[in-house]
Amino acid sequence: MDLLLIGIGTGNPDHLTLEAVKALNSVDLVLIPEKGEDKADLAELRRRICADVLTDPAVRIRGFAMPVRDPANPSYLARVNDWHDAIAGAWTAAISDAGGAERVALLVWGDPALYDSTLRIAERLARRMELRVRVIPGIMSPQVLAAAHGIPLNDLGAPFLVTTGRRLREDGWPLGVDTLVVMLDGGCAFQTVPPEGVEIWWGAYVGMSGQITDRGPLSEAGPRILAAREAARAEHGWIMDIYILRRTPAG
Amino acid sequence: MDLLLIGIGTGNPDHLTLEAVKALNSVDLVLIPEKGEDKADLAELRRRICADVLTDPAVRIRGFAMPVRDPANPSYLARVNDWHDAIAGAWTAAISDAGGAERVALLVWGDPALYDSTLRIAERLARRMELRVRVIPGIMSPQVLAAAHGIPLNDLGAPFLVTTGRRLREDGWPLGVDTLVVMLDGGCAFQTVPPEGVEIWWGAYVGMSGQITDRGPLSEAGPRILAAREAARAEHGWIMDIYILRRTPAG
Repeated sequence: MDLLLIGIGTGNPDHLTLEAVKALNSVDLVLIPEKGEDKADLAELRRRICADVLTDPAVRIRGFAMPVRDPANPSYLARVNDWHDAIAGAWTAAISDAGGAERVALLVWGDPALYDSTLRIAERLARRMELRVRVIPGIMSPQVLAAAHGIPLNDLGAPFLVTTGRRLREDGWPLGVDTLVVMLDGGCAFQTVPPEGVEIWWGAYVGMSGQITDRGPLSEAGPRILAAREAARAEHGWIMDIYILRRTPAG
Repeated sequence: MDLLLIGIGTGNPDHLTLEAVKALNSVDLVLIPEKGEDKADLAELRRRICADVLTDPAVRIRGFAMPVRDPANPSYLARVNDWHDAIAGAWTAAISDAGGAERVALLVWGDPALYDSTLRIAERLARRMELRVRVIPGIMSPQVLAAAHGIPLNDLGAPFLVTTGRRLREDGWPLGVDTLVVMLDGGCAFQTVPPEGVEIWWGAYVGMSGQITDRGPLSEAGPRILAAREAARAEHGWIMDIYILRRTPAG
């Protein structure tokens, strides 16, 4: 079986590449995960993308219920492993329910290469069946954030670190790098950074119609972002945000 | 004037997003840089993209000669600054030669946010005229490399550093990060890394028809890559490559 993992960008259907449109029209089955742990209704977005770009009426679309993680499992790693196994099982069941398929597509938020588990789940499936996996890159949130602010990710010839809120909180600002791109931060880890000389470029729902952004010295923009974040989460029921921190280079 | 900086991906015309196609059809002038320091003939690719996706015959396309850096200028920073000024001047002259324009597009290799000077040059132009800059993100080479190898950029929940060959050579492997994405490396800086426990995923011309890849333990794949790189450069007359280094996490 061919499994196509198609990056779809961050909520704007126009983030789709021409390659993604062609790939989507080349499969015979599209699997759409439903409910599960997504607070945002991404199933609706995925169905809309299929409706917009599918020109081949032979392509079938099937939803499947996303398994949820077992909170009773005390080990984080075991919990994630069991969960990935359950998702691989849900894919197999959905393909079987659909009467089988030779080419299957999954629409992956952003890009399958960036903080996404689809490739790891596909590896599990490959242990159970003959599987050829193909990845189609999609626009990722760091790019959409940088575009929204009209800034480059890197300073001239300089490196940048892509990391998570958890790692920033636990490890602090790493040595030797002046730009951080922080993702998956439910707890506003920028508050743990000494704000002197640090600028922040923040965005929530980047690429979507509800996109909001803010920027400025961390000391001033930080409190504004905390307030905007709370208000947006109350309004939408969920929030997905990302930010860039940049400090004046040392020395 | 509106200036649209449109990311076009890494050489595969299908990397274009639907947003990029719409943006390109919304302008009245597309500027195509010619010759200059590009060894690859990217002007031809840009013209092909215009031919493929432009449906509005009113959109004009104009080439302009890219200024080159002055090797006689001993200061790196001054050399780059003078060069960016010269490019901003070349844009202005090309727009004027074309009889002026309200909306102008530049097609940027990859994404304007990643190791690209177009945003910095646009800042210079904004000092000379009323300018609204809009960025349309494009597929970047790290994504295309990860897709070609079917791997994620990050280990589970872990950070990664995007850096240059020069910085890797000068600074060594930074503390606290086990994955490096190395770009702009004309000198195979991976040779300066102690290879024990390090894997490399390499690619040249990623996304293009001549794409070549290799992967493996750095101790074994490194020498193979040096040889493949030399052969490919001899064949094409130029090479653009990128790689991921990942080591077994410490502790």
